[in-house]
Formats: sequence, C-alpha cells, structure tokens
Amino acid sequence: AKIVLLPGDGIGPEVTQAAKAAFDAIAQRFGHDFLISQALMGGAAIDATGEPLPAATLAACQEADAVFLGAVGGPKWDKSEKRPEQGLLAIRKALGLYANLRPAVTHPALYDASPIKADRLKDVDIMVARELTGGIYFGEKQEGSEAAWDRCAYSAEEIDRVLHQAARLARSRRGKVTMVDKANVLATSRLWRRRTEAVFAEHYPDLELEFLLVDAAAMHLLSRPASFDVLVTENLFGDILTDEAAMLVGSLGMLPSASLGDSGPGLFEPCHGSAPDIAGQDKANPFAAMLSAAMLLELGLGLGEEAQVLKDAVYACLEARQCTADLGGKLGTQGATAAVLARIL
Amino acid sequence: AKIVLLPGDGIGPEVTQAAKAAFDAIAQRFGHDFLISQALMGGAAIDATGEPLPAATLAACQEADAVFLGAVGGPKWDKSEKRPEQGLLAIRKALGLYANLRPAVTHPALYDASPIKADRLKDVDIMVARELTGGIYFGEKQEGSEAAWDRCAYSAEEIDRVLHQAARLARSRRGKVTMVDKANVLATSRLWRRRTEAVFAEHYPDLELEFLLVDAAAMHLLSRPASFDVLVTENLFGDILTDEAAMLVGSLGMLPSASLGDSGPGLFEPCHGSAPDIAGQDKANPFAAMLSAAMLLELGLGLGEEAQVLKDAVYACLEARQCTADLGGKLGTQGATAAVLARIL
Ligand SMILES: CC(C)[C@H](C(=O)O)[C@@H](O)C(=O)O
Ligand SMILES: CC(C)[C@H](C(=O)O)[C@@H](O)C(=O)O
Repeated sequence: AKIVLLPGDGIGPEVTQAAKAAFDAIAQRFGHDFLISQALMGGAAIDATGEPLPAATLAACQEADAVFLGAVGGPKWDKSEKRPEQGLLAIRKALGLYANLRPAVTHPALYDASPIKADRLKDVDIMVARELTGGIYFGEKQEGSEAAWDRCAYSAEEIDRVLHQAARLARSRRGKVTMVDKANVLATSRLWRRRTEAVFAEHYPDLELEFLLVDAAAMHLLSRPASFDVLVTENLFGDILTDEAAMLVGSLGMLPSASLGDSGPGLFEPCHGSAPDIAGQDKANPFAAMLSAAMLLELGLGLGEEAQVLKDAVYACLEARQCTADLGGKLGTQGATAAVLARIL
Repeated sequence: AKIVLLPGDGIGPEVTQAAKAAFDAIAQRFGHDFLISQALMGGAAIDATGEPLPAATLAACQEADAVFLGAVGGPKWDKSEKRPEQGLLAIRKALGLYANLRPAVTHPALYDASPIKADRLKDVDIMVARELTGGIYFGEKQEGSEAAWDRCAYSAEEIDRVLHQAARLARSRRGKVTMVDKANVLATSRLWRRRTEAVFAEHYPDLELEFLLVDAAAMHLLSRPASFDVLVTENLFGDILTDEAAMLVGSLGMLPSASLGDSGPGLFEPCHGSAPDIAGQDKANPFAAMLSAAMLLELGLGLGEEAQVLKDAVYACLEARQCTADLGGKLGTQGATAAVLARIL
C-alpha cells in the first residue's frame, strides 16, 4: 500500500514522524510492505513553491492509497496572499473528500482534563460525520470594503452521499443518527431535512433518526453527550460542533480524523492545529497523529486488526501515563511515541 | 412608560404573567405608572389572524417604550405554512433590533446544575452581543427539491453599529471585547475583522480586543469561560454560541435577553423556548422572564435601580431555593413568582 505523508507546518513534521513510526512498527509486526513517501503542503509548500497545495503534491496524493497530514498554518503566513489553510480546503475538494469523520470518545484517564463533569462523560462515544466539500466553505463569495457575502449552497446529491456514509456508520455502531441543521431559518437546512427524511425512510428504516437544531445541539452535546451515536451535519455546523465535542474528550491531543470520498485515497489528520509555539521542542503530543494513523489503517487500507492494535497501544500508554505533559505525563514527543511502539513490537 | 406584552405560545403566557406581576410590583414600590397592554404574536397570532406578526401587533409595539415577549412556537405549527418563528424574525427586522444581548452569569447555587465543572464556573460573567438583523438569517434564499442556497451578507454599516454597542458595553464592564468569526473561510468574516480593527483603532483604543475563530470559540467558552467579558459576533454564530454559553449557567430558566436598535422600543424575552410539554401546568420557571423584565427596566426604560431590585429579588429566591423544580426548588410558577414579589414589596 502507498501512503503519502504531508508533514506541513509547526508541530506537523514531529507528529507525522510519530505516525510514520507507527506505520513502520505495524508493517513489521504484521509483515506488510508500506510504500511511504512525503510531499509538501501548507505553509512549508508556500515557502518552497509559492503554492499551499503544489500540483506535484496533489498528483502524489491521487496516486496513493491513503494520505496522512500533520498540520498546516501558522502566524508566519497570516498576512501572506496565499494561506496554508487554502491548501487544506483545496485538497479536500480535489480528492472529493466529502465526509469528515471525527470520533469523540471519552476515556476515564482524561475525565479530569475535560471541563465537563465526569458523570456526563461516562460512555460518550460520538462519531461526527461532517459534510466537507460543500456549503458556505465552497460557495461563491464576494468581498469588498463596504460589503461582502458568502453563499451556502447544497444539492440533494451532496447531501445524500454523506447521509449514506453516516447511516452505514450507524449500522456498524449503535444504530442512531442525529441530523443537525437550522431548518427554522435556512433553505439549505430544509433541503437537508427533506433529504434525510427521504433517504432514511427508503434505505434505513431500521435506524433511529433524530433531528436537532444547531443551537439546541450545542447544548445537548454538553447536557446529554452519551445519548449521541452518529451526528451528521453540514460543513460549517460540523466545524463548530466537532470542536465543541472535542472538549468532552478533554484533550485535542487525542482526537483523530478521517476525510473520505467515494473512491480514491482518504485523508487522515489529527484535529489539533500546528501549534507553532511549541514546534520543534519535542513537546507535541503524538497520540492524535497515531490515532489518525489507526483510522488510516482501518478506513484507508481496510486493516482493521492492525488499527485496533495501534489504538490499544495508544490507550494503554495513556492509562500508564506514558504520555506528554498535556495528558498529565512526563514524556516528550519521542518518548511517548517510543512507548506506543514498544507495545506494538 | 408604555409596555407591550406579547405572551405568545406554550409557557409564554404563564411567564409573561410573572413579568407583568414584576412590573406591577416595581411600579408600586417606586411609584411608577406603567401602561401595560397585550398583543398577539407567534402561533397564537396565526390561530387568531393567520399571521405570526399581525399588523396591529407591530403597530402597538412601535408605539411602545419597550416590548416583552414570552415565547413562540410549538409542534402544532410545525407543518403549517406560516410558522411562529417567522413572527420573531419579522419583529426583530421591523423594529431594527440589530443587537441581541445575552448575559451568561454563573451563580454558585447553580454550579451543580451545569454540566461544566464548578472550578471553571467561578467568576463567569459573559455578555454576548449578537448581530440580529443581518447575515444568513435575512439574506436571499432559494429552495428547490434538488438544490437550495442561502446567502450570508453583511455591510460595513451593519457590522459597525453592533461593534459600537459591544464596545460601549465593554467600557461599562471589564474592558475586553472578543470578536468571533471564521475569517479563514468566509468573506463576510474578513469584512467583520477589518471593520473591527478599524472601529476599535479609531474609537476604542482603550479596550482589550481579541479575535477568535468560531470553532476555537466553541472550545474556549468551555475551557476558559471566566476570561470572556463581551463577546461580539454575527447572527448565526451568536445563535449557536449563546446556547452553548447557556450551559455554563446551568439552566435555561435563568437566561434573559434584550434586543436593541438605535431608537424605538427594545424587545426583551427569556432565552428558553415555549416548552409546550409543560404549558399550563404551573411548572414553568418564571425567573428568566423576570430577569428579562429587569433588562427591560434597565435598558428599555432607563430604570437601573428598579432593575437591580428585581434582579436581587430573583437571585435571593434562587439562593433560598424558593424556585421551580428545574432549579432544585419545590414551587410552581405562581409560587416562585410570589416569592420574588414578596421581596420587592
Ligand atoms: C483550517 C480550517 C479551514 C478548517 C475548517 O474550518 O474546516 C479547520 O478548522 C478544520 O476543522 O479542519
Ligand atoms: C427561533 C429561532 C429563529 C431563533 C434564532 O435562531 O434566532 C432562536 O433560536 C433565538 O436564538 O432567538
């Protein structure tokens, strides 16, 4: 299998190293042959080529079976004409990665780290399926000094395909889907609601279906998090709600993500940013990257058992406090990585 | 002073009664003469006239010094052609209520009720200033069976006026403003950012100014709520973030709001919904309505001392657990109302 690494900016290269080490260890233990290469992306790519997503990078990704991304962005490019995030939006669109999956799974070892009370955190296991290539992110825009607008557009097809993804996920989980919209105000939300009713009535009558307005969802995620299974929503609502749900887990440093299309490689990246303030200091928590590597193994390469071994190793380290300071441990990036590897090999 | 009451639907009439009783008690204690009348709004208005905001209601509001709204909506009108919420959006627009102020103030008596850990709740006193008559709520829309779109538009003028409101508020508080947007994706957000930089540099160099992306704000509201003072943002982000901030307080039943324009009457309403499931059962918590009445006295009629007396009475009842079951008390709507009145008279 061919894996392309896009280390990116800030702590991106360090955590990408951790993911690479995990792939190597899994390959060794299971006798796989991963062909791992690397390409430029984000601010690093702007510096080297002028483009956040160089054509050569995109071509390499299109050839791959799966893509791993570290992190992009940083103050260095805040005022530059092209910005690192544009590379991220461009690669999502170019690879057709319309479904962004972000699990929010709580673990007793992190209850203290979460701002949410421990009694609410028990049994929280949410999978957010966020639409990733439509909506106001990719609509027509106009920007002037006296006025500006953004257009949020959705077609039935764009909605249906992510609904199917969410429903299939729910079938392999606890059988419940919550669709979040703002149907009392937005035309696009009313289309989402009608499509959801139609798709679930026709294809998934076995699943439990719940509708929530986005403002109510922002509350219910905190008041009754354990009652969610799969939460599906449009791009911008998903952006906000996944970050809110991250607080349940207690650490951005434990949050992986997968972005999938219908065919072609998926993109796997930790949810945390590039954290330029701690870059290059062996302080970055490698676990979100390693958990993203596990999602790559499972969803990108179909290696479920391998993924489970990697995940178990990360959680075992967390429980043994073999982790970085943000999780209450004393190890650096490399030490925490080594602790996970030792449990795989 | 002329006050128009719009009881609306569900528990709206009950909590409006509580607000009216508070106005009467304040009038009696301070020797004021409030001219209080009532008009139809929401589902009740649809049933009676076919319109969620009848012309006679709007005319009465335009004549008033301040408007009090109970709550609108309910499953009864979910599938009807005209919906109660349309009345709410219409009155905001018609009265030019571009600034929606929602305080989120925590109180030790409610720490247990919040899903957030008590140590984070100490000293939380956030005032959200949400833009209320622009953005994607009021932009052009198109709704078809195969595709739909909504447009989010803002002019510099629409942005500036709510920024000035937020800044004036911050000056009377702790001197800090956090502006929330999604400037890495949205053209409108970049305009918000540019206007914020310009307006604050020219008029409010004395204030501390912070920029946050909306996804980060959804996290920081939970991880460091006490560090916010005034949070200003566009309409949809404000809708989501105020409901999230509500969870800090621990009860929707303690959350008032004020919607203000440049001239003309403001609209004051509790943040909770119409709760049709408990309507008419003397179960509704009247405190959010009474705190909204206090905002009406202060911001709508300029009666700061009167407002403080009413607020103090509500919080004294909360501390004495003279309140409804949702706040841990044993009283009904009328009992809790009477307890507040007894502290005023
Ligand atoms: C960097 C930004 C454009 C991006 C988004 O909003 O999608 C990020 O917040 C994310 O969630 O991956
Ligand atoms: C009822 C709805 C249209 C309204 C809004 O979204 O503004 C409500 O959620 C609010 O916040 O007052």
